[in-house]
Parts: sequence; C-alpha cells; structure tokens
Amino acid sequence: MNRDDAIALDHADPLAGLREQFNLPEGLIYLDGNSLGVLPRSTAARVQQVVTQEWGEGLIRSWNSAGWIDMPRRLGDKIARLVGVGPGELVVADSTSVNLFKVLSAALTMVRADAPGRTTIISERSNFPTDLYIAQALAAQQGFELLLAEPDELPALLDERSALLMLTHVNYRTGRMHDMAALSKSAHDAGALVVWDLAHSAGAVPVDLSRDGADFAVGCGYKYLNGGPGAPAFVWAHPRHAGRFWQPLAGWMGHAAPFEFTPGYKPAEGISRYLCGTPPVLSMAALDCGVDTVLAAEPLGGMVALRSKSLALTRLFADRVAATCPQLRRVSPQDDARRGSQVCFAHDEIGYPVMQALIARGVIGDFRAPDVLRFGFTPLYVRFVDAWDAAEHLREVLVSSEWQRPEFNRRHAVT
Amino acid sequence: MNRDDAIALDHADPLAGLREQFNLPEGLIYLDGNSLGVLPRSTAARVQQVVTQEWGEGLIRSWNSAGWIDMPRRLGDKIARLVGVGPGELVVADSTSVNLFKVLSAALTMVRADAPGRTTIISERSNFPTDLYIAQALAAQQGFELLLAEPDELPALLDERSALLMLTHVNYRTGRMHDMAALSKSAHDAGALVVWDLAHSAGAVPVDLSRDGADFAVGCGYKYLNGGPGAPAFVWAHPRHAGRFWQPLAGWMGHAAPFEFTPGYKPAEGISRYLCGTPPVLSMAALDCGVDTVLAAEPLGGMVALRSKSLALTRLFADRVAATCPQLRRVSPQDDARRGSQVCFAHDEIGYPVMQALIARGVIGDFRAPDVLRFGFTPLYVRFVDAWDAAEHLREVLVSSEWQRPEFNRRHAVT
Repeated sequence: MNRDDAIALDHADPLAGLREQFNLPEGLIYLDGNSLGVLPRSTAARVQQVVTQEWGEGLIRSWNSAGWIDMPRRLGDKIARLVGVGPGELVVADSTSVNLFKVLSAALTMVRADAPGRTTIISERSNFPTDLYIAQALAAQQGFELLLAEPDELPALLDERSALLMLTHVNYRTGRMHDMAALSKSAHDAGALVVWDLAHSAGAVPVDLSRDGADFAVGCGYKYLNGGPGAPAFVWAHPRHAGRFWQPLAGWMGHAAPFEFTPGYKPAEGISRYLCGTPPVLSMAALDCGVDTVLAAEPLGGMVALRSKSLALTRLFADRVAATCPQLRRVSPQDDARRGSQVCFAHDEIGYPVMQALIARGVIGDFRAPDVLRFGFTPLYVRFVDAWDAAEHLREVLVSSEWQRPEFNRRHAVT
Repeated sequence: MNRDDAIALDHADPLAGLREQFNLPEGLIYLDGNSLGVLPRSTAARVQQVVTQEWGEGLIRSWNSAGWIDMPRRLGDKIARLVGVGPGELVVADSTSVNLFKVLSAALTMVRADAPGRTTIISERSNFPTDLYIAQALAAQQGFELLLAEPDELPALLDERSALLMLTHVNYRTGRMHDMAALSKSAHDAGALVVWDLAHSAGAVPVDLSRDGADFAVGCGYKYLNGGPGAPAFVWAHPRHAGRFWQPLAGWMGHAAPFEFTPGYKPAEGISRYLCGTPPVLSMAALDCGVDTVLAAEPLGGMVALRSKSLALTRLFADRVAATCPQLRRVSPQDDARRGSQVCFAHDEIGYPVMQALIARGVIGDFRAPDVLRFGFTPLYVRFVDAWDAAEHLREVLVSSEWQRPEFNRRHAVT
C-alpha cells in the first residue's frame, strides 16, 4: 500500500461527504476528536441565533417560546438513538463527572436496600481518573470498597460481595474496548449492577445499552459528539429501575413540578429526575449541532458504517506506524473487536516532545502521562490520506532530532 | 411626582450610561433581570470568537493557548471583587444547585468531625426550592434534620444542636434581604457554620462575605451577572477552612494535578478542589462578558452606587403601585435595608393572568406560585421612567378586563 492507495480509499468512501459538515482548519490533520471534536459548520450560526435572538430578543420568554426548558430531553432523545435506548430514557445535563456521581449514588443506594452484604465496587485500574475519583469519594463516604483490576481480571472479581461494576467502555489511554454484553452479563450473574461510561464510545462505536444489559450509563458531549469545549454530558438509567434511581443532587429541575416552587422535593418520574440546576442553554445549542453531525450518517448506514470506516482508519494508521516506527510500542489492541476509535503507541522517554513536534507539524494528537501518544480517528471527518500522512510525519519526527527542541520539551498545563 | 420627574431622574443619573452596554429590545421594559439578565452588547462577538477562532481554529490547543483551563479561576477572581473576597478564593463551576451540594457536603463533614452532637440544618421556609431540596437530600442521607422557619424566627433556632445555617441572602419570592453580618454572628455564636446563597445578591447588592463572617457561599451567573441562560454558577469557601472543605464531587478538574492522570484522588489546594468536570467554555465566555458589565460600574462607585440607584428604583415603583393598585398586597419590605433589588406584590387569585397581560404589553416581570407578581430592577439597565411606566401599565391591566383573556390564563411550563 502507498499514499495513492489511501487517496483511492477516500475516493471510494461513501461517508467522505460527511466531512463537509465541519470547519476544519486548512492543512491540519486532526486526530484529537477523542479529546475535543471539531467545530461543525452549523454551530456558529446556531449559537449566534440563540445569543442574539432567543436570549437577546426573547429574553426570559424563550424558556417557553424557544423550548429551552425541554432541551435536555429533546437533545437526550437524539443521543438515545446513538446508544440503543428509547426516547424519554436519556437526558443531557451537567458534566460526565457529575452524572457519574448521580448514577453511582443511585446504584449504591439501590444495592444497600436490596443486598446490604454487597460492598465492593469493581473497576479497571486504568479507568479514566475522574471515574475512579468519584467512585473513591462515594466508596469512602458510604462504606464501600473500590477494587481495581486489569481488564482480563474483572470477571474473576465479580462475586457475592460485588455491588457494582463500573467501567468505561473504551479506555481513554489504550483504546481498548470492553465487551459490554459479556461483562454486563457477568455482573448480573454475580448479582451486581453495571454502570457504563460512554465518553469514548458515543458517536464513535455502535452502542446498544438496552440489548447489552446496562443498568446505568453516562457519556461526554465534547468528544465524538462534537459539542464544543466543556459541552454538557448525558445520563441514562434503565427503565426497569424506574422510580428507584434516587440520588442526592436533588436540584429543582429534577423536581416533578419545578415551577410550583413547593418546599418539599418530589422527584420527576423517569430520567428527568437526573436534571439538577438550570440547563446551560448556549452550550446545549452547540451540542445539538454536534449531535446532528453524527445523526447525519444515519441514511448512510449510521454507527455501523461509521464503525467500519473507523476500524479501517485505525488499522491503516496502526499498521503503518508499527511498520515504520520501531521505537514505539503498540498499546491499542490489534483485534478490531477490542479496539475503539483510537490508536495509541507508547515510548518510555520521549512521548511528550514527540507529540509536541507532531503538533507543530499540524498533526494533532495528544499525550497521556506517563508515556502514551494518543491518536483519535473520528470517521466523520478524518480521511485515509490523513492517517497515511500522520504516520509518515510521526516516522519523520522520530528519525530526526526535531523532538529535542527546547520548546517541545516544555510542559503545558493541558497535555 | 409625575412621569417628567422620573425622566428628570434618568437625566441626572450618573449610571445612566451603563445601559449602553446592553442590547435591549426596543420598547421593552425588562423587570426580570433577577431571573435572566439582559444580553450584553459584547457577548455575541465574544462567543463567536470562542466558537470560530478558539474552538474552530485552535481546537484542543486552546486549552493552553486561549487560557481555557484557567477560566474558572480568572472569572472567579472577577466575581470575587463583587462579593468581598480575595483573588484565588472563588471559582466558577457547575450550577448553583451543584455548588450548594458541594458546600453543604463539606460543611456537614466538618461539623461531624468537630462537633458530632450537632445535627440540625436551619433554613428559611420560603428559601428557593433547590436550596431546600439539596439540603433535604443531604440531611436524609447523612442523618441531619432540616429545620425551616420564618426569617424572624431564625436566631431563636440556633443552639447547641445547630450544625449549619443555610440562607439565601435575598429571598427569591419576597425580595427580603437578610442581615448577613448579624445572622452569621448568631450562627457562629451558637457554634454553627453559615452558608449563603447569593443568587439574588451578586451584582445586585453590595456583599462582603469576608467582613460579614460567611463560611461558604454560592451564587448564580445568569441573573444580575448577565451571563446568559443557564450560565455557570460560582462557589466560595472561607480561606480559614483551607484544606478542610472536602466534598464528594471529586472530579478530575478539582485534582491537584489533573493532567498527571493518577488513579488516586488528591484534591487541589484551595477553592480549585470545587471544580469537578471539564469547564463549559462557551458558557463561561458569555458569563465573562456579563460580569464585565457589572465591573464597568467600578469607576462610578461600583456596587454602592448601583445599590443606591436600585433602592431608588424599587422605592419609586413600589410606592407608585401601592398608591395606584389597591387590589395588590405589598410583599417586599419597605425598609431599604431589608429590600433586595426586586419588588413583589401578591394577589390571591389573578396574579398569573395579570402578569401575562403585562408581558403582552412589553412589561416583563414574572409570576412565582402561588400568588406573587415579581419585578426585578437591575440598576445597570433599568431607568426611572421604566419603573414609572411599569407601574402605570400594571394599574391599567388591573382596572381593565385585559387579564381575563383566555391566552393569559393558559399556564406555560415556565412561569
């Protein structure tokens, strides 16, 4: 295979036109959509409309007239289509961290009521830190024990002491994807509940929460959903738990009737009880545009088609880097079934400056301490030729002394 | 006094020019800045810059190059100037409800460690519902008792069983303002901590949290700070509690070193530990513009000058309505020292349709169930002639059959 073959793949790609939905800076190869998705073309005008017309002209009236009050549910219904759940089951609210707190709080409360002897929360040692931090905080506060293990060791930890299995579907550092159906079944067979964090899955890989037995899920709006920096997150609870998934972030927007202003809390039926404060309208408008860029793939085969392209992209890049960059250690799985939409390589010493040198060349990935070079492939806008060229840039940086430049060795606050 | 006198007051008003900072729809009298502040002129361009340049062009690099990562602290330092606390003491994050959960959790944890016999949380019966709901949830979960009372009964409830006094400084329904210094002292004298919600105070009345003995405070970005619908909120803890104010929303952005991605949670020193998930950049950019509209008053006397105008506006409106609308019952205090920046009147039966009729005339206030007509006066952009005209419209609606129209009696989702 050569560069022309990559170009030919782009010409033959039925999803190629979806890239037109985005404002991609000229000359940039953007492989960081798993950290911050690219700006959709529709977002600027939509946000401007919300600011100048809905807020500026409509003012407080827009809560009704522009439908602001229903945005968390309306947008939730769109995201529901991407993760295999029904309308009315999922809402957009707060951050992934805050939503994780809600579902963990609810799950632990349910377990304590149903099976007080179950006291362990099981997760992956290299789960995204915020997930572990929130779980640690709740475990410490409520008398549970957090057990961390490597992915393959997880099923063995599930036993009669298990309250909860909490996993991120696709690992942020390695790109390894869990088998949601198998692990959910293992958890349920052991009598435990299961919580899935879809931060690196929603919009990136097909997800079917209902079919695959999840109890709760949260996910992120600013990665593959292209919702913009710090976009709000989403949260889902299985309808079989309806009425039971109480949690203490009992804000007024989760009340059964917020505008009756009653002093006693009465949670809304269903997932609306996971709303808390006043929803962030500007951020939700941007997220709405981002989600639409993913839904635009539906007539072309939807998440299945996107997944197929994503796997082809990550395979091309990973194989090429493995062949041309012997200095690097492959971190992400070679098995398609176990790889998310990203490729990671490690270097014990120079991962950070190599990534800075790549970024300076216009190939944007990111570095994840202590040693990972991370490359996300959003099939909506990344081309096969981008994957080819990125691998070539990486090879060139590694064989040159480019990465040794002082400016590439200076640490930034955000890596 | 007549309408010309009101116009003369506007001509003589040294703050009159501040109104030019806003995009006010032609012909509208907007008395709902205590629910959603007006759009500043600077916001649309600033948000557009963040969307198209910082996000669109800079992409992930803008966390460093555009300073996104420090926005919660930078913006917090600006708000700090409005509430009498120092730089580095306050951050912008999440919603008021979520922040209230953080400070109540922290305060209850501190009390349990220091004085385990203290088990009551004291608040006002007509406090804003979200405050009561969050307190109820935490009280139920952690074995505390929530005691609610009328404002004048609060000091008598403070005793050796008191853990916490939690109050909203200016009541959302009545506009009554508590004496922060006196009540904080009463709480401390009884050995309790005190939490202040500044939702209807920040940018509306002078606040000096440090001088007046507060332990914790939260506040809202979308009311008098003009941050836009659902703008993020702020949170403060007194530095005397440094290192102690732990809370279980232990998200990665509150970690001492988020980008080291360590599996164990180590909270940041100081108020940064109250950050949780990834900060909402678009919403914070809008809030930044809103806060600047209040800071623009600093050379003209700042919050003291704004307060003086606010009192004159509310006095004019309240006196005029009291004189011309005998059908209404005055709810907000006549005493300047006890009145926030709003005026409320009640009607047992027709409050809702009267407000709808007023809104249809272009005089925008809001209705708060079960019986309150609420009018907020943001001195940055409300004129004396607006106060005069609004009172006249209210009189006309009440003496006509206008409010009886079916469309004014149909309830909206948001009132």
